[in-house]
Amino acid sequence: MSSLSSIKAVKPLPTNPVFWVPWRTSSEFKIGSRLKVMNSLVSLSYHAFGKGNADFNLFHNKEGPDSDFQKHIVDAEVLITTPFHPGYLTRELMEKAKNLKICVTAGVGSDHIDLDAAVDHNIEVLEVFPLPLHNAPTSHPNKVSGSNVVSVAEHVMMSILLLVRNFVPAHEMIERGDWQVSEIARNAFDLEGKVVGTLGAGRIGYRVLQRLVPFNCKELLYYDYAALPAGAAESVKARRVEDLKEFVSQCDLVTINAPLHDGTRGLINAELLKHFKKGAWIVNTARGAICDKDAIAAALASGQITGYAGDVWNVQPAPKDHIWRTMKNPLGGGNGMVPHYSGTTLDAQARYANGTKTILENYFKNKAQEPQNIIVGKGKYETKAYGQR
Amino acid sequence: MSSLSSIKAVKPLPTNPVFWVPWRTSSEFKIGSRLKVMNSLVSLSYHAFGKGNADFNLFHNKEGPDSDFQKHIVDAEVLITTPFHPGYLTRELMEKAKNLKICVTAGVGSDHIDLDAAVDHNIEVLEVFPLPLHNAPTSHPNKVSGSNVVSVAEHVMMSILLLVRNFVPAHEMIERGDWQVSEIARNAFDLEGKVVGTLGAGRIGYRVLQRLVPFNCKELLYYDYAALPAGAAESVKARRVEDLKEFVSQCDLVTINAPLHDGTRGLINAELLKHFKKGAWIVNTARGAICDKDAIAAALASGQITGYAGDVWNVQPAPKDHIWRTMKNPLGGGNGMVPHYSGTTLDAQARYANGTKTILENYFKNKAQEPQNIIVGKGKYETKAYGQR
Repeated sequence: MSSLSSIKAVKPLPTNPVFWVPWRTSSEFKIGSRLKVMNSLVSLSYHAFGKGNADFNLFHNKEGPDSDFQKHIVDAEVLITTPFHPGYLTRELMEKAKNLKICVTAGVGSDHIDLDAAVDHNIEVLEVFPLPLHNAPTSHPNKVSGSNVVSVAEHVMMSILLLVRNFVPAHEMIERGDWQVSEIARNAFDLEGKVVGTLGAGRIGYRVLQRLVPFNCKELLYYDYAALPAGAAESVKARRVEDLKEFVSQCDLVTINAPLHDGTRGLINAELLKHFKKGAWIVNTARGAICDKDAIAAALASGQITGYAGDVWNVQPAPKDHIWRTMKNPLGGGNGMVPHYSGTTLDAQARYANGTKTILENYFKNKAQEPQNIIVGKGKYETKAYGQR
Repeated sequence: MSSLSSIKAVKPLPTNPVFWVPWRTSSEFKIGSRLKVMNSLVSLSYHAFGKGNADFNLFHNKEGPDSDFQKHIVDAEVLITTPFHPGYLTRELMEKAKNLKICVTAGVGSDHIDLDAAVDHNIEVLEVFPLPLHNAPTSHPNKVSGSNVVSVAEHVMMSILLLVRNFVPAHEMIERGDWQVSEIARNAFDLEGKVVGTLGAGRIGYRVLQRLVPFNCKELLYYDYAALPAGAAESVKARRVEDLKEFVSQCDLVTINAPLHDGTRGLINAELLKHFKKGAWIVNTARGAICDKDAIAAALASGQITGYAGDVWNVQPAPKDHIWRTMKNPLGGGNGMVPHYSGTTLDAQARYANGTKTILENYFKNKAQEPQNIIVGKGKYETKAYGQR
């Protein structure tokens, strides 16, 4: 499997600009009647390929020197990838990609692209970014939900609740034919009354805070390099904590909603975990490498943390023996891991297909891109989100 | 295991009025440092028993003619039960309970008590009911959260998210060492943009609506014998649908938050399921018998519904071969069942311990009970919640 597609130089714009959902091959494609919007995505991608449109290359393998990725990158002009099965575009590969002008990440999170190298090679990097809610037009504050940030924020909320309420051991007990309420209840809590903090209060983190509001948490905290606008912070009643150790020491639950860059890689390590509240929960749907794999597993096994959930791994797909697959707390629960899919629900696929389509249209028609989508412009960073201050 | 305790006639009030959490025996009792409030619960219950206080009888078995329940009910004055491992107080047993004056349900849901028989025998039945939020003092609208209704509302939110987002197959894939995002994503959706309806908009249903608000559902609906007060409906933007078939036909997801009585038993049956939107999800944390066991399993197997989750069963503990333990949708997911524990988190236990304590104090001191707690007063129903109109 792979996550990338390539569009060779094509002008004028083809009738059906293509977005490719890499794991969705026609043979396995099944859509219920509920989500009609998906039909447009199907036509968008499958019709293009189905017609044998030679303007598009669809890659099915991306690893190693003989892969389609390495073979086709040398003449591709446009590279579309997703964050789920990332095609890693290294500086070395970029140097071979003589025609490459633009990389589009269909989703949020472009750390699989060597961004410094993209700056050096004048290759633009764009994501399908929604406007942050607190920048959205006030008349439609909740309607600006593009891309997959809502999907991820929902996954965070689900993960918070299933860790705090001890869902996984409860469901597995039912599956194996048992019924011991005591074994579940002894480690099940309510979210109400807990202190929840987000490490990163950007597009995803802020949406998580919004969804937490009616749960009557004791307090909502955030840690971020930038303060939320006053109105935005007030509307979710979130308090900023500027020191990281102080931040984690105050939280019953920490949710990580920050991009991966040199400043966040390995941030949650054995040393920082000592400062967490004993028995805290951690939800990470951002990037696996923000957490130290072995330190997390050890903290869970010792009970220093009670649970860890999320869909991101330091390597993806995760190896069969990755310790995060099976790690547990001393009471036999606390693992809420899933493969990387939080941002790729059928609803999200429709949204970032549309976002990708817009970016491609702008590119082929020489129109300006929407500023919030630009990670690397022509020869320079256009965002601070990847650690560039 | 059992769920009931009895307090024989005791006046004056013992120093530590007792609430018993039945499955929590001292040998297995473990409390983390996080939840200090539990210490008071521990002292409340275990100190009383630990001192060998003869005023209290703690029952460990409740089934059959030789059970402690049947042996002690004949002279008990006060019966405390929980809804989780209910001690079924039938009319027949009630006729033997010559001294019984008051039944206290430590939690919400007293359908394990024959309420008509209680009326006939002048036995009061009380629950630990919170005020509905929309009746709460406006200065502290979110602070009136007593009993375990918040815990159940949170479990509903968790169940909604894990069904819609296809969590269980995703986690099990990780546990068994696999990684096929396609298999998960093809049946994963966002809650945003869906129509969600609650069957019952009382203390739990209304709290669910409140928690749904920031998820930007397409619409929130409710079906109830009573309309919400205008302000309450407006603050969650919920629309009432008065016809049940119309209600279910409009919902992508139906959450059941109604008591069990003659009017709700078997309400979700094969006939009604035909009117559900194809592929809908159902969350039931109310009472298992509101849904027809086999009709639900058949609807899930056929894909008429995509998922069913909850913690309540038509018989509890559920037999080992109960079909709800293993039923799945055609794509291998859609089962979010757990044992009955949603309302018995450690936080909830502390709250309903306090509520039970208050009811007992009122009883022993001949003080008036709080009206919202009274299901059956002296010889008559005091609520319409159990189908008495």
